[in-house]
Amino acid sequence: MRGSTTRYLIAGVVLLLIVAIAFWVRGSRSPSLPSGLPADALAVARERGLTPEDIYGALATYVPGGKHDEFVMFASGGHSGQVIAIGIPSMRILKVIPVFVPDSWSGYGFGVENTAIHEVYGRGPYPPADTHHPALSETNGEYDGEFLFIGDKLNGRVAVIDLKDWETKQIVRNPVFNNNHGAAFVTPNTEYVVEVSQYGVPLGHRYAPLERYKEEYRGLITFYKFDRKRGRIVLEESFAVELPPYWQDLADCGKAASDGWVFVNSFNTEMATGGVEKGNPPFEAGVSQNDMDYLHIINWKQAEQLVKAGKFVRINGFRVIPLKEAVAGGVLFFTPEPKSPHGVDVCPCGKHIVVGGKLDPHVTVYNIEKIKQAIQNKDYEKTDPYGVPVLRFDATKEAQVELGLGPLHTQFDDKGYAYTSLFLDTAVARWTLGGCKYKAPEEPWKLVGKVQTHYNIGHLAAAEGDTVKPAGKYLVALNKWSVDRFLTTGPLLPQNLQLIEISGTGETMRLLADMPLGMGEPHYAQIIRADRLKSWETYPDVGWDPHTQAKATEPGLDKPRVEVKGDTVYVYSTVIRSHFTPEHVKVKKGQKVVWHLTNTERTRDATHGFAIPGYGIGASLEPGETVTVRFVADKEGVYPFYCTEFCSALHLEMMGYLLVEP
Amino acid sequence: MRGSTTRYLIAGVVLLLIVAIAFWVRGSRSPSLPSGLPADALAVARERGLTPEDIYGALATYVPGGKHDEFVMFASGGHSGQVIAIGIPSMRILKVIPVFVPDSWSGYGFGVENTAIHEVYGRGPYPPADTHHPALSETNGEYDGEFLFIGDKLNGRVAVIDLKDWETKQIVRNPVFNNNHGAAFVTPNTEYVVEVSQYGVPLGHRYAPLERYKEEYRGLITFYKFDRKRGRIVLEESFAVELPPYWQDLADCGKAASDGWVFVNSFNTEMATGGVEKGNPPFEAGVSQNDMDYLHIINWKQAEQLVKAGKFVRINGFRVIPLKEAVAGGVLFFTPEPKSPHGVDVCPCGKHIVVGGKLDPHVTVYNIEKIKQAIQNKDYEKTDPYGVPVLRFDATKEAQVELGLGPLHTQFDDKGYAYTSLFLDTAVARWTLGGCKYKAPEEPWKLVGKVQTHYNIGHLAAAEGDTVKPAGKYLVALNKWSVDRFLTTGPLLPQNLQLIEISGTGETMRLLADMPLGMGEPHYAQIIRADRLKSWETYPDVGWDPHTQAKATEPGLDKPRVEVKGDTVYVYSTVIRSHFTPEHVKVKKGQKVVWHLTNTERTRDATHGFAIPGYGIGASLEPGETVTVRFVADKEGVYPFYCTEFCSALHLEMMGYLLVEP
Repeated sequence: MRGSTTRYLIAGVVLLLIVAIAFWVRGSRSPSLPSGLPADALAVARERGLTPEDIYGALATYVPGGKHDEFVMFASGGHSGQVIAIGIPSMRILKVIPVFVPDSWSGYGFGVENTAIHEVYGRGPYPPADTHHPALSETNGEYDGEFLFIGDKLNGRVAVIDLKDWETKQIVRNPVFNNNHGAAFVTPNTEYVVEVSQYGVPLGHRYAPLERYKEEYRGLITFYKFDRKRGRIVLEESFAVELPPYWQDLADCGKAASDGWVFVNSFNTEMATGGVEKGNPPFEAGVSQNDMDYLHIINWKQAEQLVKAGKFVRINGFRVIPLKEAVAGGVLFFTPEPKSPHGVDVCPCGKHIVVGGKLDPHVTVYNIEKIKQAIQNKDYEKTDPYGVPVLRFDATKEAQVELGLGPLHTQFDDKGYAYTSLFLDTAVARWTLGGCKYKAPEEPWKLVGKVQTHYNIGHLAAAEGDTVKPAGKYLVALNKWSVDRFLTTGPLLPQNLQLIEISGTGETMRLLADMPLGMGEPHYAQIIRADRLKSWETYPDVGWDPHTQAKATEPGLDKPRVEVKGDTVYVYSTVIRSHFTPEHVKVKKGQKVVWHLTNTERTRDATHGFAIPGYGIGASLEPGETVTVRFVADKEGVYPFYCTEFCSALHLEMMGYLLVEP
Repeated sequence: MRGSTTRYLIAGVVLLLIVAIAFWVRGSRSPSLPSGLPADALAVARERGLTPEDIYGALATYVPGGKHDEFVMFASGGHSGQVIAIGIPSMRILKVIPVFVPDSWSGYGFGVENTAIHEVYGRGPYPPADTHHPALSETNGEYDGEFLFIGDKLNGRVAVIDLKDWETKQIVRNPVFNNNHGAAFVTPNTEYVVEVSQYGVPLGHRYAPLERYKEEYRGLITFYKFDRKRGRIVLEESFAVELPPYWQDLADCGKAASDGWVFVNSFNTEMATGGVEKGNPPFEAGVSQNDMDYLHIINWKQAEQLVKAGKFVRINGFRVIPLKEAVAGGVLFFTPEPKSPHGVDVCPCGKHIVVGGKLDPHVTVYNIEKIKQAIQNKDYEKTDPYGVPVLRFDATKEAQVELGLGPLHTQFDDKGYAYTSLFLDTAVARWTLGGCKYKAPEEPWKLVGKVQTHYNIGHLAAAEGDTVKPAGKYLVALNKWSVDRFLTTGPLLPQNLQLIEISGTGETMRLLADMPLGMGEPHYAQIIRADRLKSWETYPDVGWDPHTQAKATEPGLDKPRVEVKGDTVYVYSTVIRSHFTPEHVKVKKGQKVVWHLTNTERTRDATHGFAIPGYGIGASLEPGETVTVRFVADKEGVYPFYCTEFCSALHLEMMGYLLVEP
């Protein structure tokens, strides 16, 4: 019996052991496979040669069909002239928003009258554009998801996009200046949209010889007053401040501790004017001789007071505070910044201003309290040739942090880290802030990690990284060159946007995915939490004019008819699956045509198009939308107009004839 | 001792059992995790709520940075007017190729003279476009990766894109017709690029009243002769065939067994002309009354003979074979096809022609041998009102396969399956071919599986699915509506392209990924193996003119200088990191300017841009490229021109001044 008992005991212990070991072995599979994982999921990864890091990237970025991205990145389209909206983490392009350049898909610039581009340029031709810095509207320093602003460096323009329908509502050409760079930026409650000039020119679109550069050429900062209710910049309530003809570059508006201020960096304080063909130093050398350039410190609330006090002149009808008045009125101060600065970025608390000097391996951090103190103390090291006081460097500087080669731009997270792009190192540096409401575990003002990018990173954008409350989690590197990262697309290659996970601390940053962008060169981007956007799914009512964001005032848009008044034929068309009414529109050669089309659909995604061959007309009509096209019927013939958006099984039958009789 | 021995024995067995079970448990982890899998890869999947199917999709589609996609899909951009190149399986947009619509990024349509769009339209304004069907050039029925053709439905145009540099080289406006639909398609050795009309109009861009529709309105098929060496369509060697005024729709060129033939389907054999506003049936009803429409069967080799024999007339200088001659000469035959057909597709062997009739739940399959036999036997059921012989349906038909609601288009794989899009079911049906060189395991002409798509699928594209040698593996569903699949982007929503894995047999098809496409509505796409593309990485030589694909003949492009001849200022600029030479260009108001710019770089990706504010000039200069811009300096002032492509750390310094003196 005893042996038997022992045997049972042993058997029992052993059984327990087996179970324990089995659990241990299963447990060592940590993390365990989700139950029901298809047997071939990892097989396909192996077959495709994915590394463990690739697998992580795949699983961290894949957004299944029907699920939505957590963030939206609004990227400038660079010299595409548009804005590109990208979902994060999937890095899929959700939409290209036409801004300064025509777009055949949405009918923007193709004969539709009620659009921003038509308002300014009529039927064209339209100039190219080079969009640089998108700025989301803010309330108390946080993104509110209502509007987006974007600057065009090429022609000195700023545009307003309404995020209710993701359409451009206004294009403003600077009345005084023909190029910009630091545009657009907003003040913390979107009181102003800020545009800063780049290359010095005579103010007012005038001619002056280059020999009179110092005397007649200038820089400019423009404060466009934004009327949130109307969704428009109001030129009459806007103003500018004259600046010396240094090349102003990037800008950032103060927030929280620095609300009321704008910071602009500059280079070419040498005021070099080039002329390599005459034996002068080329611009690239001429503008990089000084060890220090000037960070511009601008008190916009004070500038408002000067305008109120009438301390402005009018140039082309636009209010400009002269440089002398700006200096006298305490609006403009300088402090030195290391040579050839490029980026200037204000931290979430608003206390620190970070400047990247691309020919200096450090970022320089300024403290707004120190700046204010130096201003109060008149702690100037000199005045510049235009009389602008230069605050003593050591009086305004908080820290200098050595990061690597070619520091450009800086973004922020919710853990007390700053992230700076290093153009020459082609990397992102993570470093610690000091005295911020967010505290990193490491000591302040220290480089803690780097991640390589591919290749030549310019800007970088962190989730809500320009606000008083960054979201952390994701950062996107906007790389200028892609070289061999993607399939060859001929000699013109895409840019490369790389998604980086920044959830961790210390050195831990993970490159998750590469995204080719083969339609322009995004300069800068802002990333907003998707749940902040309150976009419309259809227009609120039938007969909606998206340009005014109101019901159109023209009566009877939903009553199809043709009316002839004098030499003009007025057509009122309704558009619904799957017909236009009327289907025949007969005019005589030489008659003017005014054609109103109204999409009477109320179903989401029930968009119709409208196009006429030969007459350069293309429109997109979203549910409820009304558009107007206008042309002279100067070519006789038969023109089948049709719906360009595949709307139903009978879409191809959705057409009609425009008959232009001899 | 006995008890002890037993105990040892039991212990031994148990130990073995433990080891065996441990191995079993480990072994059951099939497929095992790749060694070194980061512990957090599956954790992030769980945290993000990915299902096992999502994990499969992620791992099957993720393409790591630096690795390349296996296929490239060239998709029409629909009413964007462009072509969109997408990597597969990553579904990332590699590039948007500007075709019919200006593009600010590449400077296409923004003042650069040596481009296809400038050649036709000068400085604009440019009409919108609606690209429909891309066609890759073929050699012996396989894609050769050399050229891409695309039709514009809106204005009856066809364009030629050279895949050496992915640029549009030619835009051809049909001399006789102002709209199309079935364009472009190529014959198996790219002898011709085929364009088929859609809506009936009078030939030759004339006016005729709608009341004379049957008498004076017509359809047209155009055969554009392609000169592969010059990379151009040669209008003088091209011709067209007059067709009855049915609405011709899609087309496909015969190949292998059916080489020498083109198949075109049609609807509106009712010749309805609409006019709902007058109480007529609207087009959507009027054109769908007949039970049968006509598949057009066109012998293009015979048509070539008729042209040689002088059996053509000239309309606007272009050779057109009249309908009567086409019938008499054995060029044109009809056979009935079930009501409202839409897609027509030729199988890899060329033997079978598949027609999808969107108001019929079947696809109808015709056999080219039967067609030829019926033609030889004059097995006509009647002639149509224009004298075209209608081959007896049962004499030409091979099979009808019931698939579901709204069958449209068909693609093929390398396993004997056909795939048909079902618009109303919003699904892809897989079914078996019969008598094909590829044999599916199931019996022929049977539906074997369906996969849901989201939503309203139009075209679908399988890898090399239009060739004599399909690649299988991947299929893309081009869905017209996305509704709620992505974040709301305002009332205008993206399309949804869905990647489907078709490697398996039988029912097994897997939806791998959704891709939003928010910049137009791709109609059709072709997918080519990436290794067939032999694209250039830089231009072959400095001074290369991409429009002629040859070195520019203008001498001394690499010698910067300014020459004044009469009222014209000739500027020769070199462009290299990081300066333009010359940096100062001074002209007098009213002078003409001809400006040659040459990028002297030989480094891949060393692209520079060139833009002038105020003068509507934007250019992109790839390594080696030379461009010419021409304008009248009619506005005095100071215009800083600059490089729009971030090319080096000193990119912002790469600028110069255009000074227009009063």
